[in-house]
Amino acid sequence: MNESLLRSLLERLRIGEVSVEAALHELQRPTIADLGFAQVDLDRRERCGFPEVIFGEGKTREWIESVVRRLQQAGQDCLATRLSPAQADYLSSAFPTAEVDRLGRTLWLPSCGPRPALRGKVLVVTAGTGDLPIAREAVTTAKAVGAETDLVADVGVAGIHRVLRQREKLQAADCIIVVAGMDGALPSVVGGLVDAPVIAVPTSIGYGAAFQGVAPLLTMLNCCSANVVVVNIDAGFKAGYVAALIARRAAAAR
Amino acid sequence: MNESLLRSLLERLRIGEVSVEAALHELQRPTIADLGFAQVDLDRRERCGFPEVIFGEGKTREWIESVVRRLQQAGQDCLATRLSPAQADYLSSAFPTAEVDRLGRTLWLPSCGPRPALRGKVLVVTAGTGDLPIAREAVTTAKAVGAETDLVADVGVAGIHRVLRQREKLQAADCIIVVAGMDGALPSVVGGLVDAPVIAVPTSIGYGAAFQGVAPLLTMLNCCSANVVVVNIDAGFKAGYVAALIARRAAAAR
Amino acid sequence: MNESLLRSLLERLRIGEVSVEAALHELQRPTIADLGFAQVDLDRRERCGFPEVIFGEGKTREWIESVVRRLQQAGQDCLATRLSPAQADYLSSAFPTAEVDRLGRTLWLPSCGPRPALRGKVLVVTAGTGDLPIAREAVTTAKAVGAETDLVADVGVAGIHRVLRQREKLQAADCIIVVAGMDGALPSVVGGLVDAPVIAVPTSIGYGAAFQGVAPLLTMLNCCSANVVVVNIDAGFKAGYVAALIARRAAAAR
Amino acid sequence: MNESLLRSLLERLRIGEVSVEAALHELQRPTIADLGFAQVDLDRRERCGFPEVIFGEGKTREWIESVVRRLQQAGQDCLATRLSPAQADYLSSAFPTAEVDRLGRTLWLPSCGPRPALRGKVLVVTAGTGDLPIAREAVTTAKAVGAETDLVADVGVAGIHRVLRQREKLQAADCIIVVAGMDGALPSVVGGLVDAPVIAVPTSIGYGAAFQGVAPLLTMLNCCSANVVVVNIDAGFKAGYVAALIARRAAAAR
Amino acid sequence: MNESLLRSLLERLRIGEVSVEAALHELQRPTIADLGFAQVDLDRRERCGFPEVIFGEGKTREWIESVVRRLQQAGQDCLATRLSPAQADYLSSAFPTAEVDRLGRTLWLPSCGPRPALRGKVLVVTAGTGDLPIAREAVTTAKAVGAETDLVADVGVAGIHRVLRQREKLQAADCIIVVAGMDGALPSVVGGLVDAPVIAVPTSIGYGAAFQGVAPLLTMLNCCSANVVVVNIDAGFKAGYVAALIARRAAAAR
Amino acid sequence: MNESLLRSLLERLRIGEVSVEAALHELQRPTIADLGFAQVDLDRRERCGFPEVIFGEGKTREWIESVVRRLQQAGQDCLATRLSPAQADYLSSAFPTAEVDRLGRTLWLPSCGPRPALRGKVLVVTAGTGDLPIAREAVTTAKAVGAETDLVADVGVAGIHRVLRQREKLQAADCIIVVAGMDGALPSVVGGLVDAPVIAVPTSIGYGAAFQGVAPLLTMLNCCSANVVVVNIDAGFKAGYVAALIARRAAAAR
Amino acid sequence: MNESLLRSLLERLRIGEVSVEAALHELQRPTIADLGFAQVDLDRRERCGFPEVIFGEGKTREWIESVVRRLQQAGQDCLATRLSPAQADYLSSAFPTAEVDRLGRTLWLPSCGPRPALRGKVLVVTAGTGDLPIAREAVTTAKAVGAETDLVADVGVAGIHRVLRQREKLQAADCIIVVAGMDGALPSVVGGLVDAPVIAVPTSIGYGAAFQGVAPLLTMLNCCSANVVVVNIDAGFKAGYVAALIARRAAAAR
Amino acid sequence: MNESLLRSLLERLRIGEVSVEAALHELQRPTIADLGFAQVDLDRRERCGFPEVIFGEGKTREWIESVVRRLQQAGQDCLATRLSPAQADYLSSAFPTAEVDRLGRTLWLPSCGPRPALRGKVLVVTAGTGDLPIAREAVTTAKAVGAETDLVADVGVAGIHRVLRQREKLQAADCIIVVAGMDGALPSVVGGLVDAPVIAVPTSIGYGAAFQGVAPLLTMLNCCSANVVVVNIDAGFKAGYVAALIARRAAAAR
Repeated sequence: MNESLLRSLLERLRIGEVSVEAALHELQRPTIADLGFAQVDLDRRERCGFPEVIFGEGKTREWIESVVRRLQQAGQDCLATRLSPAQADYLSSAFPTAEVDRLGRTLWLPSCGPRPALRGKVLVVTAGTGDLPIAREAVTTAKAVGAETDLVADVGVAGIHRVLRQREKLQAADCIIVVAGMDGALPSVVGGLVDAPVIAVPTSIGYGAAFQGVAPLLTMLNCCSANVVVVNIDAGFKAGYVAALIARRAAAAR
Repeated sequence: MNESLLRSLLERLRIGEVSVEAALHELQRPTIADLGFAQVDLDRRERCGFPEVIFGEGKTREWIESVVRRLQQAGQDCLATRLSPAQADYLSSAFPTAEVDRLGRTLWLPSCGPRPALRGKVLVVTAGTGDLPIAREAVTTAKAVGAETDLVADVGVAGIHRVLRQREKLQAADCIIVVAGMDGALPSVVGGLVDAPVIAVPTSIGYGAAFQGVAPLLTMLNCCSANVVVVNIDAGFKAGYVAALIARRAAAAR
Repeated sequence: MNESLLRSLLERLRIGEVSVEAALHELQRPTIADLGFAQVDLDRRERCGFPEVIFGEGKTREWIESVVRRLQQAGQDCLATRLSPAQADYLSSAFPTAEVDRLGRTLWLPSCGPRPALRGKVLVVTAGTGDLPIAREAVTTAKAVGAETDLVADVGVAGIHRVLRQREKLQAADCIIVVAGMDGALPSVVGGLVDAPVIAVPTSIGYGAAFQGVAPLLTMLNCCSANVVVVNIDAGFKAGYVAALIARRAAAAR
Repeated sequence: MNESLLRSLLERLRIGEVSVEAALHELQRPTIADLGFAQVDLDRRERCGFPEVIFGEGKTREWIESVVRRLQQAGQDCLATRLSPAQADYLSSAFPTAEVDRLGRTLWLPSCGPRPALRGKVLVVTAGTGDLPIAREAVTTAKAVGAETDLVADVGVAGIHRVLRQREKLQAADCIIVVAGMDGALPSVVGGLVDAPVIAVPTSIGYGAAFQGVAPLLTMLNCCSANVVVVNIDAGFKAGYVAALIARRAAAAR
Repeated sequence: MNESLLRSLLERLRIGEVSVEAALHELQRPTIADLGFAQVDLDRRERCGFPEVIFGEGKTREWIESVVRRLQQAGQDCLATRLSPAQADYLSSAFPTAEVDRLGRTLWLPSCGPRPALRGKVLVVTAGTGDLPIAREAVTTAKAVGAETDLVADVGVAGIHRVLRQREKLQAADCIIVVAGMDGALPSVVGGLVDAPVIAVPTSIGYGAAFQGVAPLLTMLNCCSANVVVVNIDAGFKAGYVAALIARRAAAAR
Repeated sequence: MNESLLRSLLERLRIGEVSVEAALHELQRPTIADLGFAQVDLDRRERCGFPEVIFGEGKTREWIESVVRRLQQAGQDCLATRLSPAQADYLSSAFPTAEVDRLGRTLWLPSCGPRPALRGKVLVVTAGTGDLPIAREAVTTAKAVGAETDLVADVGVAGIHRVLRQREKLQAADCIIVVAGMDGALPSVVGGLVDAPVIAVPTSIGYGAAFQGVAPLLTMLNCCSANVVVVNIDAGFKAGYVAALIARRAAAAR
Repeated sequence: MNESLLRSLLERLRIGEVSVEAALHELQRPTIADLGFAQVDLDRRERCGFPEVIFGEGKTREWIESVVRRLQQAGQDCLATRLSPAQADYLSSAFPTAEVDRLGRTLWLPSCGPRPALRGKVLVVTAGTGDLPIAREAVTTAKAVGAETDLVADVGVAGIHRVLRQREKLQAADCIIVVAGMDGALPSVVGGLVDAPVIAVPTSIGYGAAFQGVAPLLTMLNCCSANVVVVNIDAGFKAGYVAALIARRAAAAR
Repeated sequence: MNESLLRSLLERLRIGEVSVEAALHELQRPTIADLGFAQVDLDRRERCGFPEVIFGEGKTREWIESVVRRLQQAGQDCLATRLSPAQADYLSSAFPTAEVDRLGRTLWLPSCGPRPALRGKVLVVTAGTGDLPIAREAVTTAKAVGAETDLVADVGVAGIHRVLRQREKLQAADCIIVVAGMDGALPSVVGGLVDAPVIAVPTSIGYGAAFQGVAPLLTMLNCCSANVVVVNIDAGFKAGYVAALIARRAAAAR
């Protein structure tokens, strides 16, 4: 509760508009739906601009279903990520209107009513074909958060002309997500071609000394282009989320 | 060279406005100052919005001096980072008008003439006092790139009320940089309090299993807040750079 | 054998109350049940306050069954941890009165007779829902060792108000166990809110740079709150064990 | 502010005993001394039972001096750890009444007035002679927090009779700290001899595959004795702190 | 071919006892059975005292079978290790007289004829029950190489009296193998109790920060007892091999 | 497009031989087949001497099939590596004339028409039998790129005479590939016996501290022989590719 | 000794042209200069094409001097690498005619007499200015082994046009060495532009997650371009050595 | 105290030959010299065959001096290892008759009186010249423990004939120590040439991916020769100790 709300509440208490109990209640109002196994943060949309997102790994199908229902009930959008095929099947049946992307491992169930217009351009670029699942997770998330998205696949640096011919698309984006495994070199090149922020996503594609994504993660952290930031290995969700935040803000200016 | 420029050039060649040699020259125009030991990328300001920045480590003082002079000569801003005390002393003498920050290890020598207005709010927050040098590097860089900056030091999560009382400052920022060593937990909390992008900078402050910044780096990569991205250990420069890009774009909208 | 017992034995030998053979036997009394594949330490309850606990991994079902029977026969409590579903099924049949927790992967078969009262409050807190199996292992263990337990799930720091509203529960505990994967940041916050010891348990929940629990382990080892100690990744058992020791001792004072 | 304090404040506001401004002030009262480079947490003693402790590394001597003065001024005890020889010299001059331990790298400057009685027995045990500096840091901290301490040095497991002959001391302690480098095996043995909690401190003593304390850290995390918890490499401070918390609570019962 | 053999051959050539072709053949005599996919080193028994041993992993069943047959044909003992259940089944059928140990994952098929007497005492000790498969591999190997063996299981240091009561057995051995996972602390204690060489075998038993045997490997490499050497994680074979070499030599003296 | 081609194009434009549109098209000619999920680099054969090679992991069978068809259609050779058994089965049916090597996990489908003669000798040597799959991948690749190949298996250094007797073969090769897991010591010996370049391929064969190929990778990077370079763990493809490049060039000289 | 030499020697022995002693001596001829602390391999030039090279680290100045003198005395070229400034000073005085490169840390003292012509083109390319010392070591070595060399500095991928404008130089080389620290991305791009072998040298330039060269090493091992092989971190020597071998062989064809 | 001694003591107590106090004293007799900072294990010579050895790192000069004096006073041999130059200087003055080896970093001060004959042959072999300090530590230790020693330096595998010509020396040894850094490949070759146990000592010689000895450590742990065991990086002491144990026992047989 920020100061102006707090001051107003206390003033209303002083002049008798609210009782001590009511003020106490207000000062301690729960904004959390307690499901026992989970404390669903119903305040997050207001605080952070987007509702809580469900991370599928390590959760039973029933747990996920309950959280989805609770968010629906609260009139909030619902996004779930990293769903196993079994979880995806179960949730598809439970929520027939949800969009389930088996390649990207996501479920998207928007709240009812009209959606705000998509705003700001997020471009997702992959180094290889095998990076597509993570790229799709990023696309789904960025759309859910409210940005326009475009996807360019398989333009790794071993054939540098492939990315160079996408220069106009790159330069038109408000934020670029680069998804790459193995050597993870693509963000370094992309970063040097544009003046927008670039979010690099290392993937676990590769073998041997790729170490399930450690190699591209390190490459990206050491990226020589100054406009490149990094997220966790295979974290398409986080890249899509932040890219949409950035792009939407930038687009508001146009 | 983008398509419209290229089309125009070819058209002018066709109608005889430019010669083959001139067109050839234009198509191959060097935008690089070759100093032998360095290829200074004079095109970067136009391409990426900011000139090449000099990384001090592993370079002789004379090498750095030469690059600074070349950038000056090209009428470009000049920022150098990670300067040793000896490099800083030498460059202070060589460029008496430059701002040298020994704590932040930077040199800043803007080009002559009027500066564009600072635009967009970047807030730099540190978990501890020992994180200040990296925070200072971020502040200097963000200013150089053209954003307003503010700095709040020592609000680590072990005394959670320290950061909670900064909520309004946090919520007013266009982009937040969180600098933390040891457990690196602060970005997770800050990320959950705001709807702006957060850039987390792990520092090498700490001992034992902090492993010179690996511990906070991993914490930050695994951060549960969806709006947090990460840069290299001690990479105050990169955080400041990207934060300013984001903040400037967001501010343009206001 | 401590000095007073030893002195008494020798004195009784000197005055002829015990024979040399009897004294010899007493000085070399086996307190171990040798099962060939295992040396069950029957003295541990007396020495350490709790019988030997069976670690299920890497053992055949028959081996585990034999150790359980031997402990039963010796009139001792029996706790087994990290049981696979197959082991749990087998042991459920073999010991129908045992409590088997498939989520927490434990078996609990108390010795016959009246149980001592539970004493001291252990609070188990998790950052996420996926941390529940480890939390359950901790709860079962702490109860077995003799402490009262309570469990609060899913109050990770990305929604800091979730844990802040549990402050009174936190402040009432004699010892707190915080179970967290991914960024492992929760113990740093909890530690700063209370004056009781906090035991942090990193979990293998997460992906990419979580490295099966290494990331939260490092976070916790570098925790800025001075009252936080750490156990192995996924070691709910050890956390529950030590927390109960601490809480029981503290409670004795009330 | 807990609920009863809050309720009382609101009640007093309602009946006019306090003004809105005063209530507002109270609800937002700063409990932090803002020194610019540091936010000294003056509330920590009340919240956590001990004032904020100063970590010397990465801080200038002047910064440390200022924090010490501010804590003194607030009538609080002051403990500083991991001081370099230069920091120790400077602070010795600045605070002539402080106890400075150069081997343990600590400064201890208690607040004026009578001290509460030491309560609870903390025993610090080292595997080798080289572990003494860390053990001394633990002793100083445990004393500062208010526990009685004893120190037994150089009883590593390669001569197992050395630790076995200390059994009575071990069994009399309320909490035991075991400090060991190299193989880090001592806590496993000590843990099996007692029923008190054991805090294991890995040290960076050793060479080669000791990896600056990683080897004993892993040993201790994998310790087979159920009553052993772990702190960071060389973290004598944290071990002393938690051990004193545990011992004081246990002692209150006697 | 050593010098005396060489000199003799040349002398016989000079005096015409052998032809140039024969000498040439002798100087280049193949001592390898080339199976295409394998070069079976038939000279190893003579050179190293024991024939080549077959490592099962990564080999087809047919490959292993062929090598076993070739060694048989050459009248040599045959030992195969790390066999999968499928490999073990196949080879059991192919070589019905072979001893196959499914727990230890070995096959042992001695050459025909009388065996030399077992000589020298190798004692294999395990810290836990889960270490038994590796211990069995060591026992089988040491016997094959020609030493007497004995096995003591589950005497880990958490109940130190378990190993102390085995002191006489320990002191009677010519070489001791200690097999331990998790904290890997047992060799440090055993090494300090005897004057024989101790070979430590880390196992992959454990979880979390045991890192599949890395933790006990590091413990053992940093072992404070001077008479302890180490082999690879789970390398029961190598420990048994070297222990038998040492014990046989020592026993020759009696 | 290199300068002479560019100059010629511009000259032809100037004199009207080509139109602006045609020149523009030529300057921007796509040399990439865009399949949506992949940008097949049709220019690579011309640029690098060999068409793009398909890496099977992380790709659906349909994706691979499409790329193979597209390369066929472009009249290019097609090599696919690291195929799973399921992928291999599917592609065998789809392309009945392709050579599929299930041990080496490759598919080879040369373009129609006469093949150029194999040129240059690549010798592939393995330390063990388990290294054969990777060796086969190297052989297939080197042949595809156009070199003669020979394979010598199982000549690891533990029986040093096995490799010494291959000296003439070693000395006759234009480039040697050494494939080894476990200790990875063979390249160090081979490198010291020849004056040709040696490419070392670490394999994931081994266990425990072999760490899936990290141990031989490090051995090979630290190889004391000056003529040894290294590729990724299990990267038989890359070794075969580079070896053929080197051998073909060397052979051209004869 | 190969078979034809051996056959000839034996034949000469048979017919009495050589004595048994002489033949024996020949068969056992030492080709090593034993200096006590070093066994200088005088046969290496003949066997491997270049004399033994002296690695300066960990050697006393006197040891190095002795080996240089011994090689000189044997009429062989002498190259020493990784010399400290103190070693370089000492050796400069001891061998005034040697070329000492303090930046590249090398000493080069060719044998007397006419040198063979340099043959084959080795191009050394660096990503940054800080990579120059390692590049210089590579240049010196490649020249010593007998190849022509050229050096292009500071063309990292963050300004991709810098390397693209060097395309003709790149395409003209027989072998390319790419030296890069930080993200190590340059070899991936260079490899895709040429059909010659590329040797990638990671350097320890960078900070934080560059981990003293581990980041670029992993990048390079995972390089997507098929023609790229790797050497140890900072191993300019080895890269220069192999590149010269490759280039000389290729050049022989022209 | 073993059983026969214990039985005899009890019998003498029963018949009155010893008093209860005397028996008690005997059962609890200290065999440790407690110096406060160290518990010198005076029983170790009897128990393990050699007195406690002083590890110099992390100890003050005075501490070391005191332990040396105490061992002298007890009539025991005294060996100290890993002495810094400053420690060595100090101890040279304090104990003028001690043998101090600055290269090997050891001090050796035998007890007075006649020494037992050296027995058993320990051969120490190094791969490079830079491995000599560790080899010297091994030689000094093996001699102190009572074995004959010989040292062969610089016979690494890159010139395989260097080690092959030492075959007779190798085959004559009772135990071989192989000291190697960088690729650590020498033990694999030596192990395959002999039937004696081989102790491999990795050294921190090398750079880059040698990782201060990790590379050769892993090589040696994965050594393909069955008779090779390993000690810690740079642990010449431990290798010398165990080798002497093995060699002395083997020699007793002759």
